[in-house]
Amino acid sequence: MKLLQDKILQEGKVLSESVLKVDSFLNHQIDPQLMLEIGEEFARLFANEGITKILTLESSGIAPSVMTGLKLGIPVIFARKRKSLTLTDDLLTATVYSYTKQESNEISISNKFIEKGDHVLIIDDFLANGEAALGLIELVTQAGATIAGIGIVIEKSFQAGGNKLREQGLKVESLARVESLSNGEVKFVKDKVEESV
Amino acid sequence: MKLLQDKILQEGKVLSESVLKVDSFLNHQIDPQLMLEIGEEFARLFANEGITKILTLESSGIAPSVMTGLKLGIPVIFARKRKSLTLTDDLLTATVYSYTKQESNEISISNKFIEKGDHVLIIDDFLANGEAALGLIELVTQAGATIAGIGIVIEKSFQAGGNKLREQGLKVESLARVESLSNGEVKFVKDKVEESV
Repeated sequence: MKLLQDKILQEGKVLSESVLKVDSFLNHQIDPQLMLEIGEEFARLFANEGITKILTLESSGIAPSVMTGLKLGIPVIFARKRKSLTLTDDLLTATVYSYTKQESNEISISNKFIEKGDHVLIIDDFLANGEAALGLIELVTQAGATIAGIGIVIEKSFQAGGNKLREQGLKVESLARVESLSNGEVKFVKDKVEESV
Repeated sequence: MKLLQDKILQEGKVLSESVLKVDSFLNHQIDPQLMLEIGEEFARLFANEGITKILTLESSGIAPSVMTGLKLGIPVIFARKRKSLTLTDDLLTATVYSYTKQESNEISISNKFIEKGDHVLIIDDFLANGEAALGLIELVTQAGATIAGIGIVIEKSFQAGGNKLREQGLKVESLARVESLSNGEVKFVKDKVEESV
């Protein structure tokens, strides 16, 4: 997605060989118009998958997911990283290790909003080692629902997550695929080269 | 906002005299179309306030804020409840006590995205005792910016927050104002009765 790549080149900050900071439009400040266009793109890519629900993870996955849900006309559920007192229902839980934050989080959803028969699109802001996506997949599986696909805003293709998920036969669509962050520079995977993998 | 009141009456669950659970469309599962209409309503109510930024708090404030930002054509910043390793900039912080979760959280924003000269609309999902709103106001004040107003999706008018904020002369617009949760029933403040306070 050209618009997103341009935004990353203009505003993204390369903090290390593996950390790209996009706090000015996705992870802290949010650009609502860009989120709408991201939502339109995910909706286009997954239009024919018979999706009934979108599942994401708080907090940075919420904005792109809500725009996608708006375009597809379906609800969004966000998994929580901590339990809330008002979430009194039976919870489905999975453990997710964050390499960025160097800690494990239990993520959870109520068993009320994703059910057997649901066909779920998972959306997240970043795909690196795939831990968050695998945790979300586990929640969907526990609910007895099926995975329609995985929509990622920014994939770091030099980390293992993308391959892990694609090897499982999952449809993974990343709107920007970063090949390398070496020398303080963002390089994207060339268009379509890996699309057929 | 009639649509929101109807949704609360249909799907809201009264857990106690002070806790209303709206996990099916706002706090866990999100109804994107309703969020869009909430965003349109906030945009209408604050159209002439010269707002430059929206500030909210993760996670439930994000969806209504992004829709409002879309309609007003301005960015959204969400304050974080925990520090992130990739938020390396200088942080502005405030302490917020949550009566629901019975714990204090430090909330923080980077000092990069709200600056002197900004005129900020604060949006949050609930207004009860006003702790979250007061914390967000403190962050805006620390940044040297000014408050344009406060947009609340659901106000529990029987708790002190609304009065605290209005007594400071702030423009507070709540799309649904709950007068009471007694006897397991949601009662709304009668239209316009308190609007002139």
